Amino acid sequence: MAGAAPSEEALRRALAERQTAVDAQAEAVRSLKASGAKEGVDAAVEALKALKIEAGAAARRLQAAVGSGGGAAREEMRQTVVNTLERKLFYIPSFKIYRGVAGLYDYGPPGCAVKSNVLAFWRQHFVLEENMLEVDCPCVTPEVVLKASGHVEKFTDLMVKDEKTGTCYRADHLLKDFCKDKLEKDLTLSPETAAEFKRVLAVLDDLSTEELGAKIKEYGIVAPDTKNPLSAPYPFNLMFQTSIGPTGLSVGYMRPETAQGIFVNFKDLYYYNGQKLPFAAAQIGQAFRNEISPRQGLLRVREFTLAEIEHFVDPEDKSHPKFVDVADLEFLMFPRELQLSGESAKLTKLAEAVLKGTVNNETLGYFIGRVYLFLTRLGIDKSRLRFRQHLPNEMAHYAADCWDAEIECSYGWIECVGIADRSAYDLKAHSEKSGVPLVAHEKFSKPREVEKLFIVPSKKDLGLAFKGNQKMVVEALEAMSEKEAMDMKTALESKGETNFQVCTLGKDVVITKKMVSISMEKKLEHQRVFTPSVVEPSFGIGRIIYCLFEHSFYTRPSKSEEEQLNVFRFPPIVAPIKCTVFPLVKNQEFDGAAKVLAKELTAAGISHIIDTTGISIGRRYARTDEIGVPFAVTVDSATEVTIRERDSKQQVRVGIDEVASVVKELTEGQSTWTDISFKYPSHIGPQGDQE
Amino acid sequence: MAGAAPSEEALRRALAERQTAVDAQAEAVRSLKASGAKEGVDAAVEALKALKIEAGAAARRLQAAVGSGGGAAREEMRQTVVNTLERKLFYIPSFKIYRGVAGLYDYGPPGCAVKSNVLAFWRQHFVLEENMLEVDCPCVTPEVVLKASGHVEKFTDLMVKDEKTGTCYRADHLLKDFCKDKLEKDLTLSPETAAEFKRVLAVLDDLSTEELGAKIKEYGIVAPDTKNPLSAPYPFNLMFQTSIGPTGLSVGYMRPETAQGIFVNFKDLYYYNGQKLPFAAAQIGQAFRNEISPRQGLLRVREFTLAEIEHFVDPEDKSHPKFVDVADLEFLMFPRELQLSGESAKLTKLAEAVLKGTVNNETLGYFIGRVYLFLTRLGIDKSRLRFRQHLPNEMAHYAADCWDAEIECSYGWIECVGIADRSAYDLKAHSEKSGVPLVAHEKFSKPREVEKLFIVPSKKDLGLAFKGNQKMVVEALEAMSEKEAMDMKTALESKGETNFQVCTLGKDVVITKKMVSISMEKKLEHQRVFTPSVVEPSFGIGRIIYCLFEHSFYTRPSKSEEEQLNVFRFPPIVAPIKCTVFPLVKNQEFDGAAKVLAKELTAAGISHIIDTTGISIGRRYARTDEIGVPFAVTVDSATEVTIRERDSKQQVRVGIDEVASVVKELTEGQSTWTDISFKYPSHIGPQGDQE
Repeated sequence: MAGAAPSEEALRRALAERQTAVDAQAEAVRSLKASGAKEGVDAAVEALKALKIEAGAAARRLQAAVGSGGGAAREEMRQTVVNTLERKLFYIPSFKIYRGVAGLYDYGPPGCAVKSNVLAFWRQHFVLEENMLEVDCPCVTPEVVLKASGHVEKFTDLMVKDEKTGTCYRADHLLKDFCKDKLEKDLTLSPETAAEFKRVLAVLDDLSTEELGAKIKEYGIVAPDTKNPLSAPYPFNLMFQTSIGPTGLSVGYMRPETAQGIFVNFKDLYYYNGQKLPFAAAQIGQAFRNEISPRQGLLRVREFTLAEIEHFVDPEDKSHPKFVDVADLEFLMFPRELQLSGESAKLTKLAEAVLKGTVNNETLGYFIGRVYLFLTRLGIDKSRLRFRQHLPNEMAHYAADCWDAEIECSYGWIECVGIADRSAYDLKAHSEKSGVPLVAHEKFSKPREVEKLFIVPSKKDLGLAFKGNQKMVVEALEAMSEKEAMDMKTALESKGETNFQVCTLGKDVVITKKMVSISMEKKLEHQRVFTPSVVEPSFGIGRIIYCLFEHSFYTRPSKSEEEQLNVFRFPPIVAPIKCTVFPLVKNQEFDGAAKVLAKELTAAGISHIIDTTGISIGRRYARTDEIGVPFAVTVDSATEVTIRERDSKQQVRVGIDEVASVVKELTEGQSTWTDISFKYPSHIGPQGDQE
Repeated sequence: MAGAAPSEEALRRALAERQTAVDAQAEAVRSLKASGAKEGVDAAVEALKALKIEAGAAARRLQAAVGSGGGAAREEMRQTVVNTLERKLFYIPSFKIYRGVAGLYDYGPPGCAVKSNVLAFWRQHFVLEENMLEVDCPCVTPEVVLKASGHVEKFTDLMVKDEKTGTCYRADHLLKDFCKDKLEKDLTLSPETAAEFKRVLAVLDDLSTEELGAKIKEYGIVAPDTKNPLSAPYPFNLMFQTSIGPTGLSVGYMRPETAQGIFVNFKDLYYYNGQKLPFAAAQIGQAFRNEISPRQGLLRVREFTLAEIEHFVDPEDKSHPKFVDVADLEFLMFPRELQLSGESAKLTKLAEAVLKGTVNNETLGYFIGRVYLFLTRLGIDKSRLRFRQHLPNEMAHYAADCWDAEIECSYGWIECVGIADRSAYDLKAHSEKSGVPLVAHEKFSKPREVEKLFIVPSKKDLGLAFKGNQKMVVEALEAMSEKEAMDMKTALESKGETNFQVCTLGKDVVITKKMVSISMEKKLEHQRVFTPSVVEPSFGIGRIIYCLFEHSFYTRPSKSEEEQLNVFRFPPIVAPIKCTVFPLVKNQEFDGAAKVLAKELTAAGISHIIDTTGISIGRRYARTDEIGVPFAVTVDSATEVTIRERDSKQQVRVGIDEVASVVKELTEGQSTWTDISFKYPSHIGPQGDQE
């Protein structure tokens, strides 16, 4: 297995390189043609063809490696990673001594440190860089808010119950497992049946409750644990419900996302920002999802940390002043067209994707670029990261465009960040439900003349005619659209009266000329009032961290080659512990020096551990490599020490009083290991020999 | 009001100084006496008396200022602070557009930044400094865990209901309000009745459900809003209840504290720490408390952030190697004796409190000292911070000792940190309920000989005699204490048989000599197995932050003296924004320089805002003073700028390329403003003139 993983990685890199080459050559052909040159064009086109053939072969080699036996290798790789993670307490199944609860996990000490480093970097990369307004809202949320957002009605999964035991299953999971199983294991399947199962898998997410129930019945699917019959599917709301206050009358839920807390505060935040658009608000916090039957370990859990950004922007101007900073980035994009034509993700320049309209607008593009930088700086492998566009059937009807940052891990491609242009949907929903207008204003530099509709009902005449129903009629008149009003005006002027439907009364009434005056008048307007659009990058922190664990993990043989040692290649900003301090041998001088050094590291804010066990330095290195400590300091004198870098195993000699500042520079990113290894003498000492 | 607050503060400081003087003189008298000296003793005693009289007078002056009219002044002060906090979005009533939910608040941008700074400092001060094992557990908690901890049974408040409307009230609050109201407003009260009301107030927390109900009935207390009769009091569990998974059968609660997540992980954490004691685990996270009727604004809320430390220690050795680092600290302590004798808190040296046994042990003392340093470094006023020992009736029966860090604010003295020695209670409760032993081991350097009791029932003979009841008899025999067993041995040896009570059978049986062999044998033991004690400092982060807001707030006149300007004197580590950048006037050169500067600040990780509004520099200063920004940079050239410190309003000239590093040093605590003002030329320019 240790051999299989790098080889897959090598194939992946080879493919990415060839894709880059194809792209470069295609660009060359384009510019040659554009320049009107005739010489060389044919040769360039031939070269492009050859490169494409090579890229195709690379893709097939990778596919073969991943497809055949790749599944088993991946499973084995996952087991090795997960064992290390559990043994080193990166995470722990919650309430383990009580046999745990499915879908709930603790972060143990190194996992918790990784998480807080990831969040600190998120704050630096997004909140600080963009001057975002960070807020912190409660998890307990009253029902009215989640009714407005649509979660009370729509945040559901379809569930079936074992009719005898009452055990619950996700209906789509059962159908999916059934079809997959048949396709993989039933060798007697007719081509028609196989095609039918494939079709079902393809449209699984689009099936209605009834269709899903019909399929389960048709295929005779039973409860997997007991073989008992199943109930018809019915929706189960995934929110944890509770009750606020002692009366039991006030329903509340644990929030399913943090975004709503920002939307309901839009008005205050807009004023706080000096009534200027665009601006972004951000929130980091817990969110909850009462999964029917959690699977996939850390990837599908019942409580998780979200980091969400709501960037409010004028719908008429979605340009972004800093788009130029990310325009040249090039990474794997997987737009709708490629998905629908069965191709795979392609290295694409962000500027091009926006220019061509593949990505809806610059602001969305800007955030896609920033998310790419965030993830790769954390240590996510570029070749296993793609941005996939939602297909039309995946996207909410109001969304203008939506891209997921998907990271490939042993479970397949996992959605880790969603970047959506949600248009004005959320603010409008809360405006309507709360009655508080959540709008922005654009002041005109000089007033503009506009035509405006005036509808003035005559309350006296309406009162005489409709008595108690007067109010409903007035409201219906005032709510007319421009077209309806002008039609009524014409009818009243020609016929003196007209029929008018009043929905709230459930009938038509007769309106006469004196009951209402309708006119179009010119008016000077000083501002435009509008509901901002929202671009929302939403980060599943736990999923990102899990993928980071897989991407950072590798094994290498011990010096004696008797065993494989585990290593996490976390970059310094992510590493749970930044450095270890080892006195070379147990003696007072080295221990004393190590203590002084530890104090300096603490003062500099650098997390560290001292390992004074008498075991060999090689063993001590192995122990800290396994939790991804990037730098190890061996104290072998009171004045000078060696610093060893985890992945290269290179060592340098550094004066003991410089150690804290060197490690601080390295972990804060002001210096790289290369800088340090040029600046300080390298070292091959007894410690090095032991590895 | 602006005048009243500093005067109270001055009185407070005067008192603290006099208390220090008394303590110093008392110490002098003690050492004089101890040295056996005769000369000077009388004079020293006289001096001590005089100092005590002065201190008494200072205490009375403060009391008078706070007591008379102090209430109204405090109320007014609070209003000013709270208005500023709400206007500047330090916090926002949650879901405001839906008319909010009592007891739920959002942190808006500056509040959220203060909170994350406080938590970052907490991590630095506790987790990093002590190498604590930080974990992160879910909020959703299964019932079994909270049954073991006692929360399902005991985490309740007594509630009464308006019998007609169903509105709920806390029973003790109603009784308290009634008695207080009578004492304050009813001038016709007989001395006996007044004494009775006072007694009730004193024992309020100790009243049983029945006693509380009887008092409410006796006094004829009715629902405050409607004057309707009230139900008898009954316990209401304060945990938010929910259901885990889709079946509705698995009860869960939102955790009421984070500590339980640590206790259930003790075994793993102990192994992670190399099976060594002492060690501490820590957790920061949300906790929930479904208050019956939340009062006191931000101080009593339904969802809050806790930061908790569980320090596990050998119950036979509660010394602490770093106690010496805090031993010399001196601050207000309020031990039991002073509370019971009606005195007030006294400046006490921590070493003395531990030495005298006022504080139970060094470890508890160490954490009290560290908490003192934490709070005062955040900016909590030393004279409004005291450590109050729990009275015997406040403390859980298992607790060895318990101290609250109380901070005085406009609501009175508020418990913000609890520091408790909880002995072995929690670990034992979870060991028992889960069946997993949560214990530590002390390996002996050489084996120790111990006497051990051996009870060997003869199953054959017992089976013949008791048939189906054999198992219960065997278990009862094996469960005998050493004394019971030795008594039985004597009886069997002398009489051949004896009566023996088997509780599980509900009767006595006759045990004969051949049914059981009992002996004391010597055995070598290699280790001691024990349940560690837990010292738990538990921080209510929201309460600390609210008190910090009050302690940091002051007003000062504007330059024209026409208005009072609000200022928060947050220390740089706490300040939500570390610096502002003002181009002096709107022009391209200054705006460009300001932008470059902002980029450098971002790169250095320093939060900042640029204010390019054309308004006067004085106005811009006032605006940022109000959110507590400590440093303002005015750009009036492309090469040099002024940096102005918020509280002193001093300004220095600094080269523009040095600004980021100067502000970084200041905010990270490597330099103070005094250092900077020595190093750089001071400045009194046009900006200064405008203030």
